[in-house]
Amino acid sequence: MTTDLAGLPTPTLLLDRSRLVRNITRIAERARGLGVRLRPHVKTHKCLEVARLQEAAGAAGLMVSTLAEARTFAAHGFRDLVYGVPIESGKFDAVRSLVAQGVRLGVLVDALEVSAPLGAMARAAGVGIDVWIKVDTGYGRCGVAADGPALPALAEAVGGHPGLRFAGLLTHAGHAYHARGAAAVRAIATEERDQMLTARAALRAVGIDTPVLSLGSTPTLTHVDHFDGIEEVRAGNYVFFDVAQATIGSCTREDTVLSVLAAVVHRDQSAGRLVVDAGGIALSKDRGAVDLEPATGYGELLDLEGRDLGLRLDSLSQEHGVVTAVDPAARAMVASLPVGSRVRIRVNHSCLTAAQHGAYVVHDGVCVVDRWVNHRGW
Amino acid sequence: MTTDLAGLPTPTLLLDRSRLVRNITRIAERARGLGVRLRPHVKTHKCLEVARLQEAAGAAGLMVSTLAEARTFAAHGFRDLVYGVPIESGKFDAVRSLVAQGVRLGVLVDALEVSAPLGAMARAAGVGIDVWIKVDTGYGRCGVAADGPALPALAEAVGGHPGLRFAGLLTHAGHAYHARGAAAVRAIATEERDQMLTARAALRAVGIDTPVLSLGSTPTLTHVDHFDGIEEVRAGNYVFFDVAQATIGSCTREDTVLSVLAAVVHRDQSAGRLVVDAGGIALSKDRGAVDLEPATGYGELLDLEGRDLGLRLDSLSQEHGVVTAVDPAARAMVASLPVGSRVRIRVNHSCLTAAQHGAYVVHDGVCVVDRWVNHRGW
Repeated sequence: MTTDLAGLPTPTLLLDRSRLVRNITRIAERARGLGVRLRPHVKTHKCLEVARLQEAAGAAGLMVSTLAEARTFAAHGFRDLVYGVPIESGKFDAVRSLVAQGVRLGVLVDALEVSAPLGAMARAAGVGIDVWIKVDTGYGRCGVAADGPALPALAEAVGGHPGLRFAGLLTHAGHAYHARGAAAVRAIATEERDQMLTARAALRAVGIDTPVLSLGSTPTLTHVDHFDGIEEVRAGNYVFFDVAQATIGSCTREDTVLSVLAAVVHRDQSAGRLVVDAGGIALSKDRGAVDLEPATGYGELLDLEGRDLGLRLDSLSQEHGVVTAVDPAARAMVASLPVGSRVRIRVNHSCLTAAQHGAYVVHDGVCVVDRWVNHRGW
Repeated sequence: MTTDLAGLPTPTLLLDRSRLVRNITRIAERARGLGVRLRPHVKTHKCLEVARLQEAAGAAGLMVSTLAEARTFAAHGFRDLVYGVPIESGKFDAVRSLVAQGVRLGVLVDALEVSAPLGAMARAAGVGIDVWIKVDTGYGRCGVAADGPALPALAEAVGGHPGLRFAGLLTHAGHAYHARGAAAVRAIATEERDQMLTARAALRAVGIDTPVLSLGSTPTLTHVDHFDGIEEVRAGNYVFFDVAQATIGSCTREDTVLSVLAAVVHRDQSAGRLVVDAGGIALSKDRGAVDLEPATGYGELLDLEGRDLGLRLDSLSQEHGVVTAVDPAARAMVASLPVGSRVRIRVNHSCLTAAQHGAYVVHDGVCVVDRWVNHRGW
């Protein structure tokens, strides 16, 4: 096994171990300071070794984004899971199988048309299923309104069904990813928190106790002023952060954990052009950071030690990434990078880029120290 | 094994076998009719079973986009390969290893700074390496100009080196993917062909014979008027086609082979909203078709039989795809799709979406007939 970044094949997904540990520690302390339990969302990393570090830092269960994650993490000792996509009947067998194995797998429900057959399945199978009611606090994707009639009707149906256990209310203010600046994120975080308190009050008014209020995202956890009245926060991206999160102020570029090692495969100095062997598959074509700040491009080029080279990927095709240098400093940098040079691409959206790779090569400085599997798929 | 699409887990990548066979047959006949050999680019499918169908239809070797593809296809009997990303020194060991096993693995070179060490490596290893000189016929990514001094200098260096064999000139008019309409694509195809003839003439003028002129892309192969003077055409996307290719006129929607099976996980009839469990990972976030024609969205919803439901994915998050229906017909369709319904998402850019999945579930109508591995990675 090579012990040096320069000797790795390209493209390779790199994970900076000391930054990872620092992020996990910092956000765990932030959650403790805010008086909430932290349930990390493993959708970002899909990696057992990362989850074990989160658990050691005090994580209270995990959130999963796929049933493949649920099966993998359950098989490796993580027994308190919540599946983050609303459940539907085609996945009942998979849920029953995990619950019957003793896994506490919470599912999300936001419609009576699902809670009834879910309860019937649970009763027939002789299992009890934790049901979280999904609340929409402004994202506009899934969930019921905090202050409308659907919520109490659903909570009554869930709480009254012998096969189901009402685990709590859950929301995700995903629109915080599109906010600009700390004040805008904080406004969304406040709204998310206050609407959850409204939802709990609405249920209390009809005699229903809500065991847990669960909310969160990396940006709102970063910027919220307090979590009074909230028991659980969920966040995923913070383990790795990325340029998109740096752009909205959740972190600095020195907190970003993932990069993609690439080789220069073409250079045209007269055009200021550099082409690397990391394209849309190695990086993903997510434009999260680009839409927020066009100057970030599809990725920022670093040297092997992590220093910013001042070059940006302007376009991606399947296996090519293209830099077009304009200003004199950038053109001089292109002149210093012959074909065969190794660079690292700082990742724009870590959740999407990580999912493009089957493994992380873990490094400490320029030394390779480990290789961790990314449990992709569904 | 389930034998019906409705019983598959979601999301699952589906491959329509009869359409695949029809596309392979049609394009093989088109190449024969134009008097050129067809070297399919396997970057689109990365799949042995698809390549065997292409071989049976007369393919003359394969183009690969990664060394992982080169190793996999070589290990399964495909011995005439060209690697489509310009070679650089970090990949010399991998190339030498394959060539030493008797694989005819051509590599792309567009700089003297690469040809010299490549030749030295080949000579030291006692192998002969096929070198294709990459020509830029307007795409502006990699390659040397057809009419400048770099081309003859490079051809002389390659042809004069005992470890290297000058295999031919190769180009890819990738900018045809951004053209609008048949006339615009044909203009690019004409320019691509004519510049390759210019390049051959430039080498002939200095006494160098070019064994093969190789060019192509799915759109230019579809629309070119003739290939007189050209020996080889390469295309990849045509096996699957997609909405982007339909938009630029390379195919119709009835030729598209790939779709992603998804489940409805949320519905809000008052908002006209439908959420499915196929998001940015299952579909890729490629905007190829969207930028050409915003109305295509991130994917078109079909029923299990492949009929267009008139609904489009307007946005994607990691594991969610969101439809917002506006007009009455679309809202009525949303009303007919309760949570738990199965739909298929017609794929916008097949090369990118295929790479998001580890396998294809092959179907004939609504029956599952096979499962083929997608050899991803690098």
